[in-house]
Amino acid sequence: MTDLRIGIAGITGRLGSLCAEEAGTALSGGTSRHPVPEKNITSSPDELAKRSDVIIDVSNAATIAEHAKCFSQNNCAWVIGTTGLDNAAQDAIKEASTRIPVLQAANFSPALTVFLDLARQISAALPSYDAEIVETHHRQKLDAPSGTALAIGEAVAQGRGLSLKDVARTDQNGRRPDNAIGFASLRGGQVIGAHDLLLLAADEEITLSHRALDRRVFARGALHAARWLATKKPGLYSMADTLKNE
Amino acid sequence: MTDLRIGIAGITGRLGSLCAEEAGTALSGGTSRHPVPEKNITSSPDELAKRSDVIIDVSNAATIAEHAKCFSQNNCAWVIGTTGLDNAAQDAIKEASTRIPVLQAANFSPALTVFLDLARQISAALPSYDAEIVETHHRQKLDAPSGTALAIGEAVAQGRGLSLKDVARTDQNGRRPDNAIGFASLRGGQVIGAHDLLLLAADEEITLSHRALDRRVFARGALHAARWLATKKPGLYSMADTLKNE
Amino acid sequence: MTDLRIGIAGITGRLGSLCAEEAGTALSGGTSRHPVPEKNITSSPDELAKRSDVIIDVSNAATIAEHAKCFSQNNCAWVIGTTGLDNAAQDAIKEASTRIPVLQAANFSPALTVFLDLARQISAALPSYDAEIVETHHRQKLDAPSGTALAIGEAVAQGRGLSLKDVARTDQNGRRPDNAIGFASLRGGQVIGAHDLLLLAADEEITLSHRALDRRVFARGALHAARWLATKKPGLYSMADTLKNE
Amino acid sequence: MTDLRIGIAGITGRLGSLCAEEAGTALSGGTSRHPVPEKNITSSPDELAKRSDVIIDVSNAATIAEHAKCFSQNNCAWVIGTTGLDNAAQDAIKEASTRIPVLQAANFSPALTVFLDLARQISAALPSYDAEIVETHHRQKLDAPSGTALAIGEAVAQGRGLSLKDVARTDQNGRRPDNAIGFASLRGGQVIGAHDLLLLAADEEITLSHRALDRRVFARGALHAARWLATKKPGLYSMADTLKNE
Repeated sequence: MTDLRIGIAGITGRLGSLCAEEAGTALSGGTSRHPVPEKNITSSPDELAKRSDVIIDVSNAATIAEHAKCFSQNNCAWVIGTTGLDNAAQDAIKEASTRIPVLQAANFSPALTVFLDLARQISAALPSYDAEIVETHHRQKLDAPSGTALAIGEAVAQGRGLSLKDVARTDQNGRRPDNAIGFASLRGGQVIGAHDLLLLAADEEITLSHRALDRRVFARGALHAARWLATKKPGLYSMADTLKNE
Repeated sequence: MTDLRIGIAGITGRLGSLCAEEAGTALSGGTSRHPVPEKNITSSPDELAKRSDVIIDVSNAATIAEHAKCFSQNNCAWVIGTTGLDNAAQDAIKEASTRIPVLQAANFSPALTVFLDLARQISAALPSYDAEIVETHHRQKLDAPSGTALAIGEAVAQGRGLSLKDVARTDQNGRRPDNAIGFASLRGGQVIGAHDLLLLAADEEITLSHRALDRRVFARGALHAARWLATKKPGLYSMADTLKNE
Repeated sequence: MTDLRIGIAGITGRLGSLCAEEAGTALSGGTSRHPVPEKNITSSPDELAKRSDVIIDVSNAATIAEHAKCFSQNNCAWVIGTTGLDNAAQDAIKEASTRIPVLQAANFSPALTVFLDLARQISAALPSYDAEIVETHHRQKLDAPSGTALAIGEAVAQGRGLSLKDVARTDQNGRRPDNAIGFASLRGGQVIGAHDLLLLAADEEITLSHRALDRRVFARGALHAARWLATKKPGLYSMADTLKNE
Repeated sequence: MTDLRIGIAGITGRLGSLCAEEAGTALSGGTSRHPVPEKNITSSPDELAKRSDVIIDVSNAATIAEHAKCFSQNNCAWVIGTTGLDNAAQDAIKEASTRIPVLQAANFSPALTVFLDLARQISAALPSYDAEIVETHHRQKLDAPSGTALAIGEAVAQGRGLSLKDVARTDQNGRRPDNAIGFASLRGGQVIGAHDLLLLAADEEITLSHRALDRRVFARGALHAARWLATKKPGLYSMADTLKNE
């Protein structure tokens, strides 16, 4: 593991630069859309792939198809944190995973990975309990609900055999229909990200809460995933796989 | 105090009937719009006033003007929990308070009474902290935000010298403007009422939370107010006055 | 199911009487140590067994051995909520479960049943996160930590392959050793039972919280277990089994 | 204010060095017990006083008497964050405050300053509600309860006319006596400091919570206090005074 070479696609982004810090001496280089006068930063994914055993990809959705091809040819393990992918990009990932180990995650936090799994289980086990999701972020955040809140909603819906788009309620007024999954968004301070899932019945309540205290949790999770993935066979893996005892 | 006679205007409503239970043997009777075959329930506020030293009024806004006149004439102390009053009703209350002791409250919970006072103070002392208000109620509740959440918002705005209508944000999307007071509403289970005020800064957070566990807290508060008011001089009092050490 | 006859061993206890209320017309009778002048309450478990298809046993540890024998002979399903059992009692239960369906639970709340399972999983998935357990109960409660808090601690320890007695810390002073599981107990008001499991890391935190709002949640859970168990083959079941989708 | 010169007594300590960072170009120098090869760090408080308009003193209890004399002679404003002072030190502070403006605080966080004031008020207004204080800190912390938790306890006791030492309960077992103020301590992760005050009644609950997210909140608060104090007349001030609208 000491000799593992880790590349970062999208190294000049916020998460990419934190990943580079966490990688330390294992960092083999990175790609950036922006010209950067550092010798190990390139605009060529092929060049990065040649220097790396595993690549953490936090670039952008438009590069996925090219990366799929290039990283497969160079036999790199591929950790994908890029979101907002279309079907073509997903197909390219699937195809690549027959040749190289690929791990795809919306979020690299270990505790959020567990959170999503528990949210699904708890919603399945307690199907009649009203589900409400609350997220809090810094006041500059423009969109609501957060992507992670929506992922929690998907987990709840999946646990109950529902389609999130049929039951999501982001407005606050009026009676909640049966099976509704409510969303509320708070904004203030510099909150990195806090998420709560409440399951409410008349006689008891259960709540699952997560709070990120340092953005590096996402970078550390990505590095953990990279080190884990580097020893695996070709296939499509998730963050949940990295937390399993083997 | 053992001989105090307590009447309930609006005795057949949800809060009125709880007040009647809490009043016990001190109950002198009540008024109801609905014909009720019980000897101490009448449709005449005058009749109720003649039998009572203090009246807890949880009837409805339309009766306030008549009650003001009638209770003044009968020299009853008057505890008012009716909300949604127009200016004419407020003027009638003010006029009555020159003749009899009157206590007006949006909410009879002792802890919520303190909460509103603290919310005003804390918002004044920490004017740059982002304020967010979250309320949770049972899933049958139709309106949002709750009246108590709005009262908390008023307290925050007042503490900061702002007008709530200028700074309230009940939608969840987009960047919060400066001085915004955000509202979020959760619905589920049979929650009687839970309210949180969050004040968020980059380096610290402070939260004030209240939860009602039993609706009787409101009835007990009204009775406490009635017993307190019965010994007072004419004037217009608030729940906060009843909590002061004298 | 409409014809299912449910007996309650220990019907005059706090949980037993709530179970009787929830059973409604399905109630076939109960046992009590105290002489009670009601025709369907008896001191004989055999008499109760003859009238019942399933028995909810919330009596006491001393009666288990006799109940094991008697309910087996009468072919009753047996839901056991009695705690503090010795090895002999556990052996008797095991033996009975080869002849009749038996469900044993420390707690009948559906959400707490899920909680314990999630606590084990989350502790296994995030083994380096510091675990702290907080419980809040009414101020009359004498013992601490609560039995449910200890059960959560057992779940955490089990998920991590540790023995709770080696790592539990109920005192508050001094540095926590590695792998410590901390316990804190709050007392106040009439809190029926609130439990939190916190898993704390430097860069993120995850919390699982449960609150019982009405003691009937335990009675309803016991009834749910009884109805579920009545259709099962002989064997030893848990509350978790009743929540599985089949 | 641009010309204000701020000195830090104890500049090489954890809080002292953060204060120096926050002071920026206003920093006039500091004292340290440790020899430090920087030109504006000295072992002489007199030398520091000659270069400063206001001194933030986060050194140690043993230096207070000397500082009192020296800062008075040099006519410096004196912000004191040093704790654990004996009576002689307190007398020296009192004497100094007749000659120079002095502000003494156990904690420089603006929100905790408000918290303590609100804790006192709320405990006075709701005297029958059971008070419980919970504090969470990083797992290296050795002492419990935290100094801030004890300060909250003092505020509760003061609001109720009680002596904290008579009613504090730090053990967890047994029935809480009347008027008890309970303390619980959680340890885990790298929590800088979280404090909750719960007031629990049978029918409602109110909680006041604070969380420090960045140690710099204490340094920023000290700087705020220094800038506020520099324009005041001689006297003994508190952090609460700095939050008043004038």
